Amino acid sequence: MKLTLITLIASTLLAANAFAADPLPSWGDTAPKQNMIAFVEKVTKEGSADFVPAPERIAVFDNDGTLWSEQPMYFQAFFIFDRIKALAPQHPEWKDKEPFASVLKGDVKSALAGGEKALIEMAMATHAGMTTDEFEKIVSDWVASAKHPKTGKLYTEMVYQPMLEVLAYLRANGFKTFIVSGGGIEFMRPWAEKVYGVPPEQVIGSSIKTKYEVVDGKPAIIRLPELNFIDDKAGKPVGIHQHIGRRPIFAAGNSDGDFQMLEWTTSGKGARFGMIIHHTDAEREFAYDRESHIGKLDRGLDEAGKRGWTLVSMKNDWRAVYPVVKH
Amino acid sequence: MKLTLITLIASTLLAANAFAADPLPSWGDTAPKQNMIAFVEKVTKEGSADFVPAPERIAVFDNDGTLWSEQPMYFQAFFIFDRIKALAPQHPEWKDKEPFASVLKGDVKSALAGGEKALIEMAMATHAGMTTDEFEKIVSDWVASAKHPKTGKLYTEMVYQPMLEVLAYLRANGFKTFIVSGGGIEFMRPWAEKVYGVPPEQVIGSSIKTKYEVVDGKPAIIRLPELNFIDDKAGKPVGIHQHIGRRPIFAAGNSDGDFQMLEWTTSGKGARFGMIIHHTDAEREFAYDRESHIGKLDRGLDEAGKRGWTLVSMKNDWRAVYPVVKH
Repeated sequence: MKLTLITLIASTLLAANAFAADPLPSWGDTAPKQNMIAFVEKVTKEGSADFVPAPERIAVFDNDGTLWSEQPMYFQAFFIFDRIKALAPQHPEWKDKEPFASVLKGDVKSALAGGEKALIEMAMATHAGMTTDEFEKIVSDWVASAKHPKTGKLYTEMVYQPMLEVLAYLRANGFKTFIVSGGGIEFMRPWAEKVYGVPPEQVIGSSIKTKYEVVDGKPAIIRLPELNFIDDKAGKPVGIHQHIGRRPIFAAGNSDGDFQMLEWTTSGKGARFGMIIHHTDAEREFAYDRESHIGKLDRGLDEAGKRGWTLVSMKNDWRAVYPVVKH
Repeated sequence: MKLTLITLIASTLLAANAFAADPLPSWGDTAPKQNMIAFVEKVTKEGSADFVPAPERIAVFDNDGTLWSEQPMYFQAFFIFDRIKALAPQHPEWKDKEPFASVLKGDVKSALAGGEKALIEMAMATHAGMTTDEFEKIVSDWVASAKHPKTGKLYTEMVYQPMLEVLAYLRANGFKTFIVSGGGIEFMRPWAEKVYGVPPEQVIGSSIKTKYEVVDGKPAIIRLPELNFIDDKAGKPVGIHQHIGRRPIFAAGNSDGDFQMLEWTTSGKGARFGMIIHHTDAEREFAYDRESHIGKLDRGLDEAGKRGWTLVSMKNDWRAVYPVVKH
């Protein structure tokens, strides 16, 4: 009995030690990992000058390019294209109407030639006109089956293992983790809890307007083809304030769309942590920055150093990129 | 040593029992309390047909008239009037401009004669044009010092003790508690955590637009004199969906402004709980319903029964109204 107890205590201590020694096993022992651990240890140490009470430990993460891949185009764009194809029989007019016609011909480049305006037009045509429950089911079904054209993986298998570890590590240290993405809030919520451990109420994103209605005695929230909020660039601090109501102390992003979120987070008083994922790994993922149409990182690359933000090189700082998934 | 341990265990069990026996001491042993306990027990009992996993235990509460008093006018209106008086020296034009002129003369009735339009005009003049940090300080200072004209209490002392117990009881049972109010989101957040135990990220309310700006190298979020969202009536399910992204299973309100929130909550699948606080206690609080300009309860009173909502009579079902506060 005594021996068993001692064994139990010893193995518990060993396990605790092992965790304390390496809470981030997919990260190399380079500066980013060391910086993160040093930050978490000081803000969680009671009595330390940098101590932050648990309710104020708010961490925000961009999604596209920060928690999962975003090349050759945002995964939500693949979803939009698939929806256009699925809905085409109900929209014979799309055959002659851009950008829909190009999508139906499989000509992605022409479909995206209209830039943000074309993308919003396609989003409205595919993301509105149904109830929120119906849209949730459409997203869930797509995410469970659609495959990435290059890797052949489910999109949710293209999340970054090292970032899953950061999310879990922060939560284990009393942080509340939020997603703050330019992507659609209702495109992420159906799977963010299962994949990232982030519940719907901690997902912030771009949104369209909705309307509450009772139809045939059945209450529903209807999705309207009208923009409500763009959660990108200077919109990210606004979205954070609207949803969270406090300034984060930890922010991670990967593109200049995250610049203001990092700036807002790290310019607050006390200990703060800003991190930029730099896509440097053409072999295991993708390599792009200043010249990329998706996830352009230019100003952030110039200013990370002087602002004290931790720049993460996927190639040099990550031991693994995607999780090992068993089918 | 052994005795001490047994004593410890015994007293722990007693404490647990005492809590299990009466988690809501300020509620009389009438139907509302019994209904609430029966609901919480069935949704938290694993293996029960009505079991709800903890992450889906979302409870939403209106604020004015549900968690604190709202007579003779919304407490935020007192705040607005006090702000108009404080800002008057910087606005000499207000002396001749309604509704400001009436406020400065102390003529509340005329000031409010313009209805919602006048109230919004006054809110814009007093709630915008500063940073979010500055506004938070203004609200915090006011809440710490302003007194209700009838009771002489701080406004935060006019919260309902029985409802504080409901919030704590639900949280002890794995619920996440949210405020969903027609009042200003940034008017509630500075004190909701301390008073209700509800953190800023779980406060939903009406809002004005904001803008992120870097002024003289200092990032700030500026409050703009433009409406963003009205979180009332059919806006409440919309606000709930936008912020929480899942349908609550528990909703409490007191006026017809909460009707759609209760309808949306209780028409979902599985066990649901809807509660309406009926202001029946002119002696300890206020008595009003169908004819009141503030907190009108008419349709809710008619339909509560057939919709299975629990109607709470303040006079008959509450042993106490306000908390006992020691100064």
